[in-house]
Amino acid sequence: MLFQVEMTVKLPPEMPAERAAEIKATEKAYAQELQRAGKWRHLWRVAGSYSNVSIFDVEDNAELQELVSNLPLFPYMAISVKPLCRHPSSICEDDA
Amino acid sequence: MLFQVEMTVKLPPEMPAERAAEIKATEKAYAQELQRAGKWRHLWRVAGSYSNVSIFDVEDNAELQELVSNLPLFPYMAISVKPLCRHPSSICEDDA
Amino acid sequence: MLFQVEMTVKLPPEMPAERAAEIKATEKAYAQELQRAGKWRHLWRVAGSYSNVSIFDVEDNAELQELVSNLPLFPYMAISVKPLCRHPSSICEDDA
Amino acid sequence: MLFQVEMTVKLPPEMPAERAAEIKATEKAYAQELQRAGKWRHLWRVAGSYSNVSIFDVEDNAELQELVSNLPLFPYMAISVKPLCRHPSSICEDDA
Amino acid sequence: MLFQVEMTVKLPPEMPAERAAEIKATEKAYAQELQRAGKWRHLWRVAGSYSNVSIFDVEDNAELQELVSNLPLFPYMAISVKPLCRHPSSICEDDA
Amino acid sequence: MLFQVEMTVKLPPEMPAERAAEIKATEKAYAQELQRAGKWRHLWRVAGSYSNVSIFDVEDNAELQELVSNLPLFPYMAISVKPLCRHPSSICEDDA
Amino acid sequence: MLFQVEMTVKLPPEMPAERAAEIKATEKAYAQELQRAGKWRHLWRVAGSYSNVSIFDVEDNAELQELVSNLPLFPYMAISVKPLCRHPSSICEDDA
Amino acid sequence: MLFQVEMTVKLPPEMPAERAAEIKATEKAYAQELQRAGKWRHLWRVAGSYSNVSIFDVEDNAELQELVSNLPLFPYMAISVKPLCRHPSSICEDDA
Amino acid sequence: MLFQVEMTVKLPPEMPAERAAEIKATEKAYAQELQRAGKWRHLWRVAGSYSNVSIFDVEDNAELQELVSNLPLFPYMAISVKPLCRHPSSICEDDA
Amino acid sequence: MLFQVEMTVKLPPEMPAERAAEIKATEKAYAQELQRAGKWRHLWRVAGSYSNVSIFDVEDNAELQELVSNLPLFPYMAISVKPLCRHPSSICEDDA
Repeated sequence: MLFQVEMTVKLPPEMPAERAAEIKATEKAYAQELQRAGKWRHLWRVAGSYSNVSIFDVEDNAELQELVSNLPLFPYMAISVKPLCRHPSSICEDDA
Repeated sequence: MLFQVEMTVKLPPEMPAERAAEIKATEKAYAQELQRAGKWRHLWRVAGSYSNVSIFDVEDNAELQELVSNLPLFPYMAISVKPLCRHPSSICEDDA
Repeated sequence: MLFQVEMTVKLPPEMPAERAAEIKATEKAYAQELQRAGKWRHLWRVAGSYSNVSIFDVEDNAELQELVSNLPLFPYMAISVKPLCRHPSSICEDDA
Repeated sequence: MLFQVEMTVKLPPEMPAERAAEIKATEKAYAQELQRAGKWRHLWRVAGSYSNVSIFDVEDNAELQELVSNLPLFPYMAISVKPLCRHPSSICEDDA
Repeated sequence: MLFQVEMTVKLPPEMPAERAAEIKATEKAYAQELQRAGKWRHLWRVAGSYSNVSIFDVEDNAELQELVSNLPLFPYMAISVKPLCRHPSSICEDDA
Repeated sequence: MLFQVEMTVKLPPEMPAERAAEIKATEKAYAQELQRAGKWRHLWRVAGSYSNVSIFDVEDNAELQELVSNLPLFPYMAISVKPLCRHPSSICEDDA
Repeated sequence: MLFQVEMTVKLPPEMPAERAAEIKATEKAYAQELQRAGKWRHLWRVAGSYSNVSIFDVEDNAELQELVSNLPLFPYMAISVKPLCRHPSSICEDDA
Repeated sequence: MLFQVEMTVKLPPEMPAERAAEIKATEKAYAQELQRAGKWRHLWRVAGSYSNVSIFDVEDNAELQELVSNLPLFPYMAISVKPLCRHPSSICEDDA
Repeated sequence: MLFQVEMTVKLPPEMPAERAAEIKATEKAYAQELQRAGKWRHLWRVAGSYSNVSIFDVEDNAELQELVSNLPLFPYMAISVKPLCRHPSSICEDDA
Repeated sequence: MLFQVEMTVKLPPEMPAERAAEIKATEKAYAQELQRAGKWRHLWRVAGSYSNVSIFDVEDNAELQELVSNLPLFPYMAISVKPLCRHPSSICEDDA
């Protein structure tokens, strides 16, 4: 089941650079693990921002909550979620 | 080059049903033609709405404008556009 | 799987009273059919408004879209959707 | 008398982890006490967020204020309240 | 139990003047009846607008819904509702 | 002359508890003094929030500014003001 | 007593040109009459818009309501009002 | 050339009182200097707020930027700007 | 003197196609005349919309108002204006 | 390919003055380098603000992201991006 998730990162300016680098590295590893597991199906940067547009493929709402709330950057992000389903005009196999 | 496009349809309540059906049929044919041409890469319905989330793959901003402004439903939609690019944490081939 | 759905009805002032009454009657029958089927788990009026707060229990996003987009009042409503899941502090059996 | 209450938690990033854990534990105990007392009728997590959707069942506005303002996380939450009442189309006993 | 209700009237420009006058007269009679019944405790015009700020004193949310949704201008108003209760610093008898 | 004033308190989380208690005590004394002087005619808590809805009765805009800007919590509040006047449908003596 | 009033005109596109011209002429006469009476102290066009910024000098809120609600364009305008008073740094005689 | 400028001051709560007093004194002197120079034509307090409404009379956009960005409180203010010009219905000499 | 002007066209759906074509043709001729006169310095389409971003070069606010309010599409557009001036980091001759 | 980029700087009030000066100097050098390279085609100050309106000319979305995210002030700015393309009414060579 697909969800569009938009995330905008806002690190507090007083966070030490090493701490920020550490969180970002953990975030990257976690994001790639979820991609390899087929849970994080797409991940794009929104050009000119510190935001991404993502497509998650999960079992249900509970799994979405588990995956998103465990993001290392979760406490520092504004997140919006849209549930998706097949569009009647879509002919792309990957859209289901 | 990728763009996320969100479209929300708002047909005027006084539009005759046949006219609405006609526009929607033309829209569907056009959307599928652009999908087959590889220009409209993804198309999802936002569940519980008359909106979609789409990913367009175009040559440049001018082609995006041409494709979107020729949508038969264009005069009846609220549309927002976000330019996308590869995310440094993405490992999905389809995200570039 | 649960979703909170908020619906605000906005009928065009020029709609004839009989037409409005007809749509509302069909809407009521449909809402009660979905409640009996266990799909529309809760339905409350927001006091002082022509809005409701609802809890849907569906198989997946696709079923949510099917049920909501078939509401007779769908073309005349502003609708917002929130995916829900069990809260770690909830002890109510009905919340899952 | 029913109210829908939406709460979004925003802890200050500089709060020490033990302090945050302490407040959350007190909050959980308090939330479960109110559920057992029949005052906090439903409690759901909004998937992909640090928010909840809740249904309170109270004597009057004053009791709502008392219960909500005593939440240990009250100073750290954005809260919105909607008064609810029975919907004419509802057939669910639990909705009154 | 008290509620603050703000109402902003927006009549469709195409409504005939006699029809508008008729609705307003019925609205006025209804508003004064509710005031005499002690249900509509305060009613002020917001200066420079076609809005009012009102204080309702009702048994519960259901009565608020009944009184407000029966306003003749109800279909033509944007309405917002805030549940009120006694403020710990208030010494005015009329505020409870 | 009447004004509706809505105030939402937002104390900085790092303010020491004693300092907060001190400001609140001064605020309470000041609010009650203005009520006794007939300047702060009504004061209600908005249920489920740290906000109030108030009705001020002042000589003119300048007095409103003087009274409001001297509130001990003034630097920590979001405040909105609406000038009020008699509503043509009001029959309540207290509304003028 | 001074108020800043911002007005944005939005005539319905279907209004006949002669009717619009008529309303505008009445509006102009009324605006100039209020200026001559010293009630409408300043009137500026916001460049690039169909809006104005105005300063009214009235006895009280009630007179503001009377003058503004009698504007011939009142039903076709979005209006916002701000009560003004002397600024402690102002040295301009005209600002009181 | 006239501009309406609205300024809302938001001093950080942790700023020491002497520092705040110092900035405000410099601001006041600067504001009065600009008024005497005929550049800051009007300055009003918005009643019930820490905001002002001002009318600047400058040579061009560049001078507006120079005057406003040199305000001692500039880093602590939210500022909005509207270019003004003569309204066709204005008869006040001071409005040009 | 430069201004950024953003315009979004919203034609009423019931406008006859010939009428719309006529207005657009007049608009185009007028826009090109202003470009040739050096008043409308830049004009870009916002991709995926019926909006433009423009840079006007005018004598003063009054000329901006005159040029913009005479646009044939003026009654059908949402317009926002930002006064511009030279940026201290700009080295482009055309930016002054 | 052109993009309109609006940037609003918001430095944390507690940043030391030397640190701020340092970042601004680096930003200025970087901005001028991109202008000389033909990537940052226009750069204007919005009068009365700490904001700019810019036109970037880049190869694609990825280059826009690279240039913007490397701005020294990037962590301290609110940024909005609009993809631009040639307007059918534009006759200015520089607009393509």
